Parts: sequence; structure tokens; C-alpha cells
Amino acid sequence: MPELENDRFLRALLREPVDMTPVWMMRQAGRYLPEYREVRKQAGSFLDLCKNTELACEVTLQPIRRFPLDAAILFSDILTIPDAMGLGLYFSEGEGPRFERPLTSPADIEKLTVPDPSQELKYVTDAVQLIRKELGGKVPLIGFSGSPWTLSTYMIEGGSSKAFSKTKHLLFENPSAMHQLLDILARSVIEYLNAQIQAGAQAVMVFDTWGGALSHRDYREFSLAYMEKIVAGLLRSHDGHRVPVTLFTKGGGQWLEDMAATGCDALGIDWSTDLGAARERVGDRVALQGNLDPCMLYASPQRIREEVAATLTSFGSGTGHVFNLGHGIHPDTNPDHAAAMIESVHQLSST
Amino acid sequence: MPELENDRFLRALLREPVDMTPVWMMRQAGRYLPEYREVRKQAGSFLDLCKNTELACEVTLQPIRRFPLDAAILFSDILTIPDAMGLGLYFSEGEGPRFERPLTSPADIEKLTVPDPSQELKYVTDAVQLIRKELGGKVPLIGFSGSPWTLSTYMIEGGSSKAFSKTKHLLFENPSAMHQLLDILARSVIEYLNAQIQAGAQAVMVFDTWGGALSHRDYREFSLAYMEKIVAGLLRSHDGHRVPVTLFTKGGGQWLEDMAATGCDALGIDWSTDLGAARERVGDRVALQGNLDPCMLYASPQRIREEVAATLTSFGSGTGHVFNLGHGIHPDTNPDHAAAMIESVHQLSST
Repeated sequence: MPELENDRFLRALLREPVDMTPVWMMRQAGRYLPEYREVRKQAGSFLDLCKNTELACEVTLQPIRRFPLDAAILFSDILTIPDAMGLGLYFSEGEGPRFERPLTSPADIEKLTVPDPSQELKYVTDAVQLIRKELGGKVPLIGFSGSPWTLSTYMIEGGSSKAFSKTKHLLFENPSAMHQLLDILARSVIEYLNAQIQAGAQAVMVFDTWGGALSHRDYREFSLAYMEKIVAGLLRSHDGHRVPVTLFTKGGGQWLEDMAATGCDALGIDWSTDLGAARERVGDRVALQGNLDPCMLYASPQRIREEVAATLTSFGSGTGHVFNLGHGIHPDTNPDHAAAMIESVHQLSST
Repeated sequence: MPELENDRFLRALLREPVDMTPVWMMRQAGRYLPEYREVRKQAGSFLDLCKNTELACEVTLQPIRRFPLDAAILFSDILTIPDAMGLGLYFSEGEGPRFERPLTSPADIEKLTVPDPSQELKYVTDAVQLIRKELGGKVPLIGFSGSPWTLSTYMIEGGSSKAFSKTKHLLFENPSAMHQLLDILARSVIEYLNAQIQAGAQAVMVFDTWGGALSHRDYREFSLAYMEKIVAGLLRSHDGHRVPVTLFTKGGGQWLEDMAATGCDALGIDWSTDLGAARERVGDRVALQGNLDPCMLYASPQRIREEVAATLTSFGSGTGHVFNLGHGIHPDTNPDHAAAMIESVHQLSST
């Protein structure tokens, strides 16, 4: 593998000095890009695209070609593990992800086994290997997974949810069955992310999209404890390099201290939390990634630049900041506005 | 008007001593009750029910007859003000509230005027008067409104939203138009809540359902500032009695200190915030209302009782706590489980 030309993303995650603040965008490979929509048409369904090594590689690289981003992120879905467990993932237009065979009883949980990343999830590690080769050392590649709690909500609800009624019913009424499910998911995520690391992912991120739907106590017991287990089980270095791990709980701004205590390297911060306040609370322990409201990209390039400046100022001087949106980029975003954000981050943070 | 038989709700909001912790439930008059569903069938649409004085009174009283609740809350909708402004509120099955004529330009905002509560919203004050009469002093009656920010999101999006793209587009790109809208809404809410108080509401609550979708800075500027203006403009006593005002921002757990500084009497707390931690932060200034996860009512009565005990313990001893769910009761809740919660609160908190 060639040496990295641009390692400021990895350096910032490890709180080492950088020449300027690195930037990438959650869902940077996606529908807001016309070139993505072209490939998507060829591929068939969203899941077909995830499972097609060449096309998954192609869409991963598209934003890297278009913008001076400091990291690439594997094009995939957070629900690959439950799909590999046999739940039958599919995507219905307008409704998001669905499972053909959701979990409906503790007996369904009993039957689950940890998927073998070299078998059911080989399409993912194949994509990681190909992307690393095609990137040619330009920027590092991020691997990722959903958190056990977040995966469990989709597996039990059968898809997206507002109130998580079925999942919480199980959690409140049969916590041991819930723990059994979360435990097998945590073990699966560890094997899955380690396989991504061995295939070439140079940093990994765990997306806990729905941790914010829990109480503080339940978040610690049913989401964070399993992310902590994952952090402890990951290969933290590979091929002579540290592999930083980032945890992101959307709506988790109240719990940053707990998250920082897991031993992870960085925390993703959504826009509801002031970045400077977050740094005061945990910045001596972890790097911070975030946190522009994705809706800010609807505003003019000039307004975006002002807001980038405000975000950089809020974080303050010194290293440990990876610029990002506070959540995935919206599909109706003008790509030129993303470009304005990225350019502003680099220009305004250059030392 | 007869004297109140049970004033522990009002006393707790004012942090005066109580014999036991008062309890009510957000959306306690609603679809989880079979007797509500019967009346709803007679009324026609949801909005027809809100606008029918006798039936609105009837459904307000239903939960008071069934459970030993410590407060009644006016049966109405948070979107009555935009409807009175001429936007044409209606409810489509499965999609929630919609407006026939959403705001599509700053020119639409220019045309808005403050509705006269004695004209366009007379059906609300009529209902308040009738409910007070029918309650006969059994428990106090709560009046309410949506917050200016929350109302603005529905008025601009035309209904519910996930990302609030249009609203934030206006906010980020044309903040002065946004402020103009929020200002007229704040003035409308003040007149509306004062009319409810003069008609007999003994406490009022402002629901800021979507404040949590903002950054801390934008929350202060575009949501909290207008709630503060409302607090300052309300009749704080009427008929010789203090009228407590409660602010509730769903997802606002990070900003309790700011909320407590508005001069309100109490804060609603959702279940993501630990009640004891909230009390440490602001309990010397305001009472706290909350905060059981509404999904907990899916669990068994025994489990509900344990969780009520944990919530009471988390708040700790002394006054200033109104027990409630952390959000509205879910329509598929078993009413017997609500009864178990209410009974547990009273039993476990009796001094």
C-alpha cells in the first residue's frame, strides 16, 4: 500500500498537530451528487449498489474526485449485519430500510448467530480492498457500522420508527432478552469492523443514530455499554498505524462525558451541542468531529462561510477537530454549497 | 367559581409544600381511551372535535373521571393560532396536521395579523369556561399553546417535518423575515394564553416540540427568546391566584439553565434527561415536570411501579415536582397501565 499523501484526518483524530482542519461529510457519497444518481440507476436497488464491489468503490470515490475532502468513507449501509444474519434487508421508496423477517420474539433472538465477515459480508471487505487500491494513498478510508442499539431498533421494529415502541417494550419488559440481542450484535460489530480494518480501513466509526431516544440510564446500559465493548474489542492498530475509533450518538450531547470514558479516540457531535462547550467537557480526552447543521448548506455560500468561521471559532485553537456536518448531508443539497463549506474550512483554519 | 378541592398541582409548580406528588399526563385526553374514540366518532374530524365546545369539554373531563389525576388540560391542538391566521388547518390520516395555505414567501409573513382571541379563537375560550364550570373545582385546568418556533415550522413546512429544511432555509438565509414571523406569533400566543387565563385556565404551558432541532445558539435566538417574551407578557395572576407558566422544549435537556432564566415557574423535562441531574442544575429556580418514557407504559404494572419509584427517587425529597410522562401518552397504551402509574405516584410519594 502506498503511504498516505494526506493524513491530517487521522492526525486530528489522534489530537496530533495538523496544518489545517480536516473535513469530510457524513453521507458524502450520496444522492445530492448527480454522478451518484447516474451510478445508482445502473446498479438497480440501493442494496444492489452496496453489494456491487466496483460500483460501491466508484461512488465512494466520487466525492473525493469532486471536492478536496480529507477522508473517504466506505459506501455501505448501517444494516448490513442484520441482513447478513438473515433478516432480509430491502429498501422501499419513501419508507427507508425494511426487514422481511424482523425479530418478533425472544426465540428469534436465540436463533441469531454472529455473521462470518469473510462469508456473508465479503462484499464489504472486497469493497474496502478495492477502494484502498483505487484511492492510491490520496486520503484515508473510514470503515463503519451501526451501533448494537441502533441495529436492534430496526431488527425489532422491522424498519424506521418514531417511538421505538416494540423495541422499548422488549427492553422494559424483558431486559435479559434485549441484552442477549445487543451482546450478539456487539460481537458481530467487532468482527465486522476488524475485518474492515484488516481489509484496509484506516479509521472506523460507530453510528448510534437512535441512542438519543433512550433515558440517560438506559443509554448507558443498552447502548453505550455495548459501544464500550466494541471499542475494547477492536484492532486499535494495523499495519504499523493507529486505527482511530469514533463514536457518534445523535442526540447524545448530554452524555459526552460517558462517551469519552469508553476509550474511543473521538466523538461525533451533532449541531444541537455547542462545539466549544463540548470541548471544555471532554476535549482533554477525545477529538471532536462536527458539527454544522446540514440545513446550513441550503444557505448562500457567503452565509456558509460565516458559519464555518463560527464553528471553527467555537472549537478554538489547537488540534483535535475534524470538521463535519452534524448529521448526513441532505439529498437536496446543492453540491456547490458543499464545496463552499469544504473550501472555507481549509482556508479559514490554515495555520 | 368554587374553591379548588385539590390544588397540589398548582402548589408543586410554585414549589410550595404538598401532601403527595401531583401527576397528570401529556395528551391524557386522547386516543388511548375508548371513551375518547367514541366521542371522536360522533364529532367528525379531529379539528371538528376541538371546535365543538361541548365535546371538547367532554373529552377533557374523561381522564379526570377515570383516573385520580391532579390536573385537567384543555383538549385542543397546538396549531389553533396559525389556523386562526387563515392557513387552513386540517388533519390527514397517518400524516398528522397539514396546512392548506402554508407560508411560501416573506410576503406571506407580511400579511399575517394577530388573531383576536374573542373572535377566531372564541371556541377555545368557550371550551375553557365550560370545562371550568364542569370541573366544579375538582382539579385545576391547564391552558396551553405551541411555541412560536414550533408553530413556525408547521406554517412553513405545511405540516410535520423531519429536517425542517424550508424553515431553516428561511432562518439561515433571511433571519429578519424569520424574526418577523416569530414576533407576530409571540404576540399572538400572549393574547391567546391571556384569553385562556381570563376564561379560567389556572396554569399555562408552552409546548416547544421542535426546539431541540436547533443549535444552542439558534435555540436561544429563534425559540427561547420568544418564549421569554411570552413569559413576560402573560397574566401571572388572575382572580387572586398565581397562574404558573411551564415551558417544555422536547430535546432541550442541554439548555435547562437558559430556560430557567426566562422567569417561568416550571420546566417540562423529557425522559432523556435525568430528573435528579436537572434538579441539581435548575431546581433552585423552577419546578420540574416529568419524565417517564411514555413507552414504559407498555411494560407490566409491576415494572411501571418500579420505574415510578426510580423517577421519584431521582427527583429526591421536597417539593417542586409534578409527575408526568416525558412526552404525550402513546395511542396504543393500555389505560390500566396509565392507572398503575398514577396510583404508584400517589402511593409512593405520600408523606
